[in-house]
Amino acid sequence: MTTEELIANIRVVPDFPQKGIMFQDITTLLLKPECLKELSDRLYEQYKDKGITKVVGIESRGYLLGPALAIRLGAGFVLLRKKGKLPAEVVSETYMKEYGPDSIEIHKGAITENDVCLIHDDLLATGGTTAAAYRLVKKFNPKDIYINFLIDLVDCPRADVFPKDAKISSVLPVLEFPD
Amino acid sequence: MTTEELIANIRVVPDFPQKGIMFQDITTLLLKPECLKELSDRLYEQYKDKGITKVVGIESRGYLLGPALAIRLGAGFVLLRKKGKLPAEVVSETYMKEYGPDSIEIHKGAITENDVCLIHDDLLATGGTTAAAYRLVKKFNPKDIYINFLIDLVDCPRADVFPKDAKISSVLPVLEFPD
Repeated sequence: MTTEELIANIRVVPDFPQKGIMFQDITTLLLKPECLKELSDRLYEQYKDKGITKVVGIESRGYLLGPALAIRLGAGFVLLRKKGKLPAEVVSETYMKEYGPDSIEIHKGAITENDVCLIHDDLLATGGTTAAAYRLVKKFNPKDIYINFLIDLVDCPRADVFPKDAKISSVLPVLEFPD
Repeated sequence: MTTEELIANIRVVPDFPQKGIMFQDITTLLLKPECLKELSDRLYEQYKDKGITKVVGIESRGYLLGPALAIRLGAGFVLLRKKGKLPAEVVSETYMKEYGPDSIEIHKGAITENDVCLIHDDLLATGGTTAAAYRLVKKFNPKDIYINFLIDLVDCPRADVFPKDAKISSVLPVLEFPD
């Protein structure tokens, strides 16, 4: 299956969740067994030789393929959640959203200095949440950190939010407003 | 790995999210590669011969192992979400929660009459949400519906919420207040 065929199975919903946004709906992609398998295979091929020991999924669409990838890599899965949703002691990181500050959290002890982490989410748009996720994972001082997205919205205006040496990659490069 | 070893890796957090509840925290279970793999293997073994074509995950902890199971079964994955979170046209079902009515939704067309569905969530407590999920999936008139939980909180008081012939099973039977 080609990249173009995968992208053709993403449903674009105009003006969701607010006017002017062309929402990239991956539910239509996950619905098809052959697309779901292809995404899983591509993720595995990309990271099988990196020594990943923890896949960190960003709530909630990062939970969709994060654990499946962790299982194939023989890694563990770490839940990164919004403030107040994890039941035990957490390490947190605050970041600015459109209407004010917000926090994300990971359980204490979920990542150690011996881990090689892969942060995973469905979509890279402005990158704000993922940059905060990167800073949060960094606090655990793991050996290395990779970042992965299913979709890179390549023409989205992006703050210079990641360090220059951050190891970022995505499965599907998508134009929000194709010609 | 035995069922007892898996259960021993669930962290019990008292009084979360409210006083009196012994919260079954599966994040400690997913963190360990050998536990994560064992859960995935058990789910696959249980459903590999049922002809499942769609795994329906309940937001958001049903997303953790639902897609991984769908990939192994060669099935598609369907997101069941809370009201207003899915971007396109939906079919919905209302149910009563402690403080009033709530709704859950599935995209129109996500399930067809040719599908055999497996509804998946992390925990069976009172069963209210899952019963609503069952009614919602039923509206699509699929060939058959199975229901699966990672954890069955066996001593939780339960309304008679599922039809008598519902095909329910769980991976780990857990006592909320063991002796």
